Amino acid sequence: MLRNITLFLLMIFSFEASSQDSLIIRKIYTAALNEGQAYTFLSELTSRYPGRLSGSKAAAGAVEWAYERMKSLGFDTVYLQECMVPHWVRGNAEEAKVFAANSKTGKKVNICALGGSVATPSKGITADVVEVKSFDELNKAGRSLNGKIVFFNQVMDPTHVSTFDAYGGAVGARWAGAEAASQYGALAVVVRSMTLAHDDLPHTGVMSYGKATQKIPACAISTNDADDLSKQLKAGNPVTMFLKTNCETLPDEKSYNVIGEMRGDSKDVIVMGGHLDSWDNGAGAHDDGAGCVQSIEMLRLFKTLGIKPKHTIRAVLFMNEENGGRGGDKYAEEALRKKEKHIAAIESDAGGFSPRGFSMDAPVAVREKVKSWVPLLFPYGVYDFTREGGGADIEPLKEQGVPLFELSPDSQRYFDFHHTSADQLNAVNPRELALGAAAVASFVYLIDTYGL
Amino acid sequence: MLRNITLFLLMIFSFEASSQDSLIIRKIYTAALNEGQAYTFLSELTSRYPGRLSGSKAAAGAVEWAYERMKSLGFDTVYLQECMVPHWVRGNAEEAKVFAANSKTGKKVNICALGGSVATPSKGITADVVEVKSFDELNKAGRSLNGKIVFFNQVMDPTHVSTFDAYGGAVGARWAGAEAASQYGALAVVVRSMTLAHDDLPHTGVMSYGKATQKIPACAISTNDADDLSKQLKAGNPVTMFLKTNCETLPDEKSYNVIGEMRGDSKDVIVMGGHLDSWDNGAGAHDDGAGCVQSIEMLRLFKTLGIKPKHTIRAVLFMNEENGGRGGDKYAEEALRKKEKHIAAIESDAGGFSPRGFSMDAPVAVREKVKSWVPLLFPYGVYDFTREGGGADIEPLKEQGVPLFELSPDSQRYFDFHHTSADQLNAVNPRELALGAAAVASFVYLIDTYGL
Repeated sequence: MLRNITLFLLMIFSFEASSQDSLIIRKIYTAALNEGQAYTFLSELTSRYPGRLSGSKAAAGAVEWAYERMKSLGFDTVYLQECMVPHWVRGNAEEAKVFAANSKTGKKVNICALGGSVATPSKGITADVVEVKSFDELNKAGRSLNGKIVFFNQVMDPTHVSTFDAYGGAVGARWAGAEAASQYGALAVVVRSMTLAHDDLPHTGVMSYGKATQKIPACAISTNDADDLSKQLKAGNPVTMFLKTNCETLPDEKSYNVIGEMRGDSKDVIVMGGHLDSWDNGAGAHDDGAGCVQSIEMLRLFKTLGIKPKHTIRAVLFMNEENGGRGGDKYAEEALRKKEKHIAAIESDAGGFSPRGFSMDAPVAVREKVKSWVPLLFPYGVYDFTREGGGADIEPLKEQGVPLFELSPDSQRYFDFHHTSADQLNAVNPRELALGAAAVASFVYLIDTYGL
Repeated sequence: MLRNITLFLLMIFSFEASSQDSLIIRKIYTAALNEGQAYTFLSELTSRYPGRLSGSKAAAGAVEWAYERMKSLGFDTVYLQECMVPHWVRGNAEEAKVFAANSKTGKKVNICALGGSVATPSKGITADVVEVKSFDELNKAGRSLNGKIVFFNQVMDPTHVSTFDAYGGAVGARWAGAEAASQYGALAVVVRSMTLAHDDLPHTGVMSYGKATQKIPACAISTNDADDLSKQLKAGNPVTMFLKTNCETLPDEKSYNVIGEMRGDSKDVIVMGGHLDSWDNGAGAHDDGAGCVQSIEMLRLFKTLGIKPKHTIRAVLFMNEENGGRGGDKYAEEALRKKEKHIAAIESDAGGFSPRGFSMDAPVAVREKVKSWVPLLFPYGVYDFTREGGGADIEPLKEQGVPLFELSPDSQRYFDFHHTSADQLNAVNPRELALGAAAVASFVYLIDTYGL
């Protein structure tokens, strides 16, 4: 492993970058840091259209905002790409209480329904709670879960340096916990929030019923409440929980990806994007207002600095990443239909934090080429090209053979805000956001200049 | 420049690290992330002893806390190192108002006296304001500043990627603005706060009268207020300002560095530290509670993990970094007097943010050796050894030939909090703090194992 890292690092730094590239990248950073617009764009988007869940009025408003915004910046083309999206709504205020053994009063706890969940009956669900920490434990408990509320308390592993790795190891509980519990007759599932923070915020996120024949309500509980609940259960006394959620899945709605582009001599495309939809409970500042405004800012920097691209450079604000991915699917479908050749696809959907590098999902030769550019980006703190993966919205382009990349910002704080009411503008540092925009603009510039 | 970076990077990665080192570093990170104590220590320090300016009761309390804390952790030795420190106090609430031409009401603005400043007369100072943006402009204005309040509005250059570089380019105004303005008969100096953020917080910090024969009051104004004031002045109408500060320099007080150590077979020392004092207006969480608790945590990790050091590993919580550096001076003086050989000195005084590397002030051969360890630290996001410099508290060891290092965390948010009331525990992310502690512990482990 160490030998591999050493060899890998040796390999990276064999590129002699031109000083012209170095100057242009410096210009990109200077413009982004000095008179960047990313934070202004994010302020507009999050203040006017918080809670942009697919199918909502806020999402429709955000589409209009993004279209007009890009129009006003004078890009070569700005257009909408229609797609049908799911329309899930949370409904009225959710309620939950935990009743320790023999207690009638109960303690209010913070929950939020998971995206896609059915609601509880209107009188709520009251049942004994059974804690499991893994699918193994859940399956072992089996039919003993019948008539119970399953408390899926899988803790994210804090020893991962990347919080995304910790998330990846735990999020199955949120995605498939209800499906697994329902087969044993459980009445509902309450999932520990997907965060490494210890706080009172419930974190929503998408779930699936998979092949479940019985759809049971699924919601998230804050990590502090989860720890308290676990402690009570450990004491050995029965604990009862009351849950009431009011969510609902309405018919699909028409919505749009919003696309802006600057054109070069070649019609081949380099696409860079984020997703315009967000969860309903926050302003979607980090997730993924940041990626949206960085995409717009990338194009604006090209235009402002007079960088004439060789190819078509596209900023795409995808719709419906959070609970369906219909925008990403539609984009790939249209690219195929129109026979658009994509040289590269880049996503920013990991928060507006200080950039550290780009992850990759690409053939070896492409990776080598990209790594040879590190000396140009290292002075800006962009050094890490070791992570795997593109992003959810560009993933559908993979089968067309498009190399995929995703901006890797510092991940430590992402899950402090992710899918919560705390994902607000004030959680974003303007300089960190701007550095991300400059990083993607520089990366797009290098791909445009040298190809892949 | 690019060629240099490429060569430098190539050079770094020629080390074949042992897998034993790799395992121990993984253990250090696992312990720091899983059951780390740094954030708990920081919570204790900042809640019990906020505003630990040298000579204050809070500083004395912090000394006691640090001593007892390290004692309770069972280090081999814990002791105090006496030093006399300056004792500057802010006094009662400060006041400032800006009066636009012909206005009698005025607009309240947020100021704070700079550390070391004299107070205004008890009735305050009311005078016309003259704006300068540099020492050049100040000197050109010359005697026209007589009887005026000088508004030193030097903006930190946002195009630097490292905010410390931006700070370095502007902080002269805070340090020497009063000295420069006083020679032309100015009555006071109001300095733009040292931050890249646009907000309402005045940032204090140390200033010096140098060779000034007349000591005039010096204070900082928030960047928002500075921008407003500048706009008013640009409009061409005279602007008057009222200032009232109540600060005072009292006789020196007795205080202490707090030292804990774990001993190995060799008496040679590896010292790692932060500073225990902080400005009076905040809790000193990032500056430099973070460095203090990382130093304690570094020793605790050695002890907990049963890593037996070869050398004496020392955690030093220095007193008086902010306005005098007496603790750092005393430490070096005692090292010389006791003929202690120091192999390396490491400081953490750049905030409790995600670590990215270490800066160095050391001979070439030492730098080469350190860089050869990068493959071991790269997986933890510690990759940047290109920055110059040690830190203020260890700087006095330089003339004893000690190689100096400083932890380089991501710098983007540091000056959002620096020397303000916002430097509180909640501005610190527990994981970022823990990663910094693990980084310094790993670095100390490598120095202890391989020497320098």
